[in-house]
Amino acid sequence: MTEKEQIRVVVSGPRGRMGSETIRMIAQSPDLDLVAAIDHGHDGARIEDLLGITGLSGQVYTEIDACFSQEDVDVLIDFTNPEAGKRNLQKAIDYGVRPVIGTSGFSNEEVESYKQQMDEKKLGGIIAPNFAIGAVLVMKFSQMAAKYFPDAEIIELHHDKKKDAPSGTAIKTAELMAKSRQPKKQGAEDEKETLVGARGADFDGMRIHSVRLPGLIAHQEVLFGGKGELLTLRHDSMDRASFMTGVHYAAKTVMDLDTLVYGLENILD
Amino acid sequence: MTEKEQIRVVVSGPRGRMGSETIRMIAQSPDLDLVAAIDHGHDGARIEDLLGITGLSGQVYTEIDACFSQEDVDVLIDFTNPEAGKRNLQKAIDYGVRPVIGTSGFSNEEVESYKQQMDEKKLGGIIAPNFAIGAVLVMKFSQMAAKYFPDAEIIELHHDKKKDAPSGTAIKTAELMAKSRQPKKQGAEDEKETLVGARGADFDGMRIHSVRLPGLIAHQEVLFGGKGELLTLRHDSMDRASFMTGVHYAAKTVMDLDTLVYGLENILD
Amino acid sequence: MTEKEQIRVVVSGPRGRMGSETIRMIAQSPDLDLVAAIDHGHDGARIEDLLGITGLSGQVYTEIDACFSQEDVDVLIDFTNPEAGKRNLQKAIDYGVRPVIGTSGFSNEEVESYKQQMDEKKLGGIIAPNFAIGAVLVMKFSQMAAKYFPDAEIIELHHDKKKDAPSGTAIKTAELMAKSRQPKKQGAEDEKETLVGARGADFDGMRIHSVRLPGLIAHQEVLFGGKGELLTLRHDSMDRASFMTGVHYAAKTVMDLDTLVYGLENILD
Amino acid sequence: MTEKEQIRVVVSGPRGRMGSETIRMIAQSPDLDLVAAIDHGHDGARIEDLLGITGLSGQVYTEIDACFSQEDVDVLIDFTNPEAGKRNLQKAIDYGVRPVIGTSGFSNEEVESYKQQMDEKKLGGIIAPNFAIGAVLVMKFSQMAAKYFPDAEIIELHHDKKKDAPSGTAIKTAELMAKSRQPKKQGAEDEKETLVGARGADFDGMRIHSVRLPGLIAHQEVLFGGKGELLTLRHDSMDRASFMTGVHYAAKTVMDLDTLVYGLENILD
Repeated sequence: MTEKEQIRVVVSGPRGRMGSETIRMIAQSPDLDLVAAIDHGHDGARIEDLLGITGLSGQVYTEIDACFSQEDVDVLIDFTNPEAGKRNLQKAIDYGVRPVIGTSGFSNEEVESYKQQMDEKKLGGIIAPNFAIGAVLVMKFSQMAAKYFPDAEIIELHHDKKKDAPSGTAIKTAELMAKSRQPKKQGAEDEKETLVGARGADFDGMRIHSVRLPGLIAHQEVLFGGKGELLTLRHDSMDRASFMTGVHYAAKTVMDLDTLVYGLENILD
Repeated sequence: MTEKEQIRVVVSGPRGRMGSETIRMIAQSPDLDLVAAIDHGHDGARIEDLLGITGLSGQVYTEIDACFSQEDVDVLIDFTNPEAGKRNLQKAIDYGVRPVIGTSGFSNEEVESYKQQMDEKKLGGIIAPNFAIGAVLVMKFSQMAAKYFPDAEIIELHHDKKKDAPSGTAIKTAELMAKSRQPKKQGAEDEKETLVGARGADFDGMRIHSVRLPGLIAHQEVLFGGKGELLTLRHDSMDRASFMTGVHYAAKTVMDLDTLVYGLENILD
Repeated sequence: MTEKEQIRVVVSGPRGRMGSETIRMIAQSPDLDLVAAIDHGHDGARIEDLLGITGLSGQVYTEIDACFSQEDVDVLIDFTNPEAGKRNLQKAIDYGVRPVIGTSGFSNEEVESYKQQMDEKKLGGIIAPNFAIGAVLVMKFSQMAAKYFPDAEIIELHHDKKKDAPSGTAIKTAELMAKSRQPKKQGAEDEKETLVGARGADFDGMRIHSVRLPGLIAHQEVLFGGKGELLTLRHDSMDRASFMTGVHYAAKTVMDLDTLVYGLENILD
Repeated sequence: MTEKEQIRVVVSGPRGRMGSETIRMIAQSPDLDLVAAIDHGHDGARIEDLLGITGLSGQVYTEIDACFSQEDVDVLIDFTNPEAGKRNLQKAIDYGVRPVIGTSGFSNEEVESYKQQMDEKKLGGIIAPNFAIGAVLVMKFSQMAAKYFPDAEIIELHHDKKKDAPSGTAIKTAELMAKSRQPKKQGAEDEKETLVGARGADFDGMRIHSVRLPGLIAHQEVLFGGKGELLTLRHDSMDRASFMTGVHYAAKTVMDLDTLVYGLENILD
């Protein structure tokens, strides 16, 4: 691909929340070209009619085979569901289209089997459960910092409709930190809670605190303390659009890959 | 007192940590004049020799009666201990000197009895367990904000040698908020902790989180959430000197009072 | 009004952005009852048909006289435009309905003249250019804190489409702080900028800094520094809904007022 | 070196602020052993007598040749001045001692010439103008994040005695970010300052803001904005001790290097 050429993209799941955001992002990105969309209905319709957004090119296909055989496609971006996602990923491999898959539900074995097929074809692709590039960078940086700062606590803050605490992202972050961190029980040897729970949840000696308030959306702060200094890494996610920087980056990056990568963090350097 | 006149101050406990900070603060304040110090030894010594600080006027007395009868004194600042503090406070009342007392350990009855004596004499004075004016403002503002924002959580952060969690300031803040706040259980009706303690300590439906890390000193953040908005009040205390703005303000304010006030928050408007 | 009774509200400008948010807020507030709406069309329509929201009672009037003479109304909430706002305010006064006016463009003289009429009738009301209660509290607290902490700087952060810097709220906050703050030029006597503008804008010796980034919405942070301590007051406004806590509070408060108040800050205590 | 063996360290400049902190840090680190100190006086004295700290082993040398020929030394830690630092570095190379140099004032040519000597000997060493590992990580992470988020602003906050703005660290951070960032002029196309300086200093299209307040020490915050999200990297330096985590890490790392590295960031991975 020369620098001037646009990357030719097909989106599956164009009417879903992530799919329609993706189409809006492509429409605003000069380096991406929306070739077609895969939907379970509306075969042959124009995408702009399907979504009620003007200025979109490309048509809707209900059959992915038809789409891939009739159109010249570089990248498939899929935000559907586990079942459709796997089917579409296999078709992409068959046709030599680079897949960018945002659906979850892949087992390690499945990922490995797709990877082998793609390695043989030297085909680039990515499967990522989280495309929020800022959130992924905070995880990555936290893992790096934990090597030097074993003293760390996580504060995650979400809207007050969220049911589980701590958040999945906080757990994932703590797991990554545990890999590089020298094990340590945080706080004073003989600390005690005069109100139960004040010191938060214990994860491998680190503490995790979950704040729930109206007005909040999805935020995470990782604090690292050293003698005389404090390092803070924070991510604020204001809305779903926060995934689009990562989707865009993935669509560009798969053009230069020759294998399947799992996790956005593994294409960030 | 005209605006130009200096306030004439005696400090008891000049060699203690708070007492010596107070003397340093007076030395740098053009509106305050250090008249004398009360110590349990070194009678007749010069304060500057006692503390090894040059440029201080005034001498040391071991007898408070001798001091108050020989010197012209406006204000006594006392950072000693409960026993000496009470004795010095009574002497101040007897001699018509306005007391600024930073020692704790006064019962409600004792405060009331001193207040009656001072009301009769129309003598101003203050007893305050906490002179950190920023910390006291955060408490006061939190109480005010809790009236409009019943959804609130407290995060307090301290060095990792601190043994108790939550901090006394956090509890005090929550108590003040509970007075103006419409009772409410924070978070989702059906929220659940997948790691015990993640949601922090429960105080009247509000949540308190205690972070302990090296590098931290003494910090508190109160978060209020409303539809589409967040209000955050934070205080960072970096060292003991943070009490001096409050002590200075108290020494000036007692000149205009004609009663005994308990708590710095009650002379802030 | 007994505690059980609902406040009977009429909204003018029901199809505007603020008006429709107001109606949504009323629909969710058990203590408020939506009686009618004033629109420039659709006379006699049901409000729920006009807005496409089910579960709303009340009908649309194009004539405010007709509405006020036929309905039993406690409070008028107006988010229209300066011209309509003034006309509606006058009608509210004439009919003894308490006005809550969110339109700007009132001169001091106009406010004074409406106030006189309302004082005579002992009628409560409020005109407020800003109903974001959190933002208003930050202004109010900043004015209080500036009395004790003359060293203060403001950081305001907005989305990167905002054209003017600093924000109107930052200027307003600085003006309020200047009223209680002892004048002082911030920073080192001999400080110098090696890159022009680093120290921000100068307002009466205080510094104001304007950050503009995508992802940001509308945020303001006021920092106060004292010896060894820092006090931070912050407001994050995530969306327009952030005005509704203030509108709701105003609607309740005017029931107990017997004069016209200008500015939400003057009904917060 | 087996894991159990201690690293044998000599400190030059033991009475300076950084040197004495280093000795205190070594005394508390089981993996480091203080062998000797190089001072311009007190030859033959015991280090613990020189510093008035009990429990230190090792003696003082005025001649570095004498020290290196009589003692078995792994690492030299030097916090002296440019002239002495260069002389000591050369001696370390001559004797095969790994240097950790915290003095500034090395030209690129000088670094290159020392590096060549050390490459020949396969001798590890580091010269670093800044050992605050948290500050260095913020720079490193900022450079990484700027690749994905071209929209970034820096806020640096320092005590109000600091004369220059922006801080050297802020400039250094911006320079590193400029290397990985796609050039862009921040903010709205047609933004305008109603108060001059509000938008801060311009560095390559990024904005830098300098806050100066009493109570602050040395802090830096780098904000990255993307669609619907915000990434914040912050470092708070509370006191000089904040350099010691980095010095300790460097002393361990040079044992495994076989070249001279300039800049702490280049031994962090």
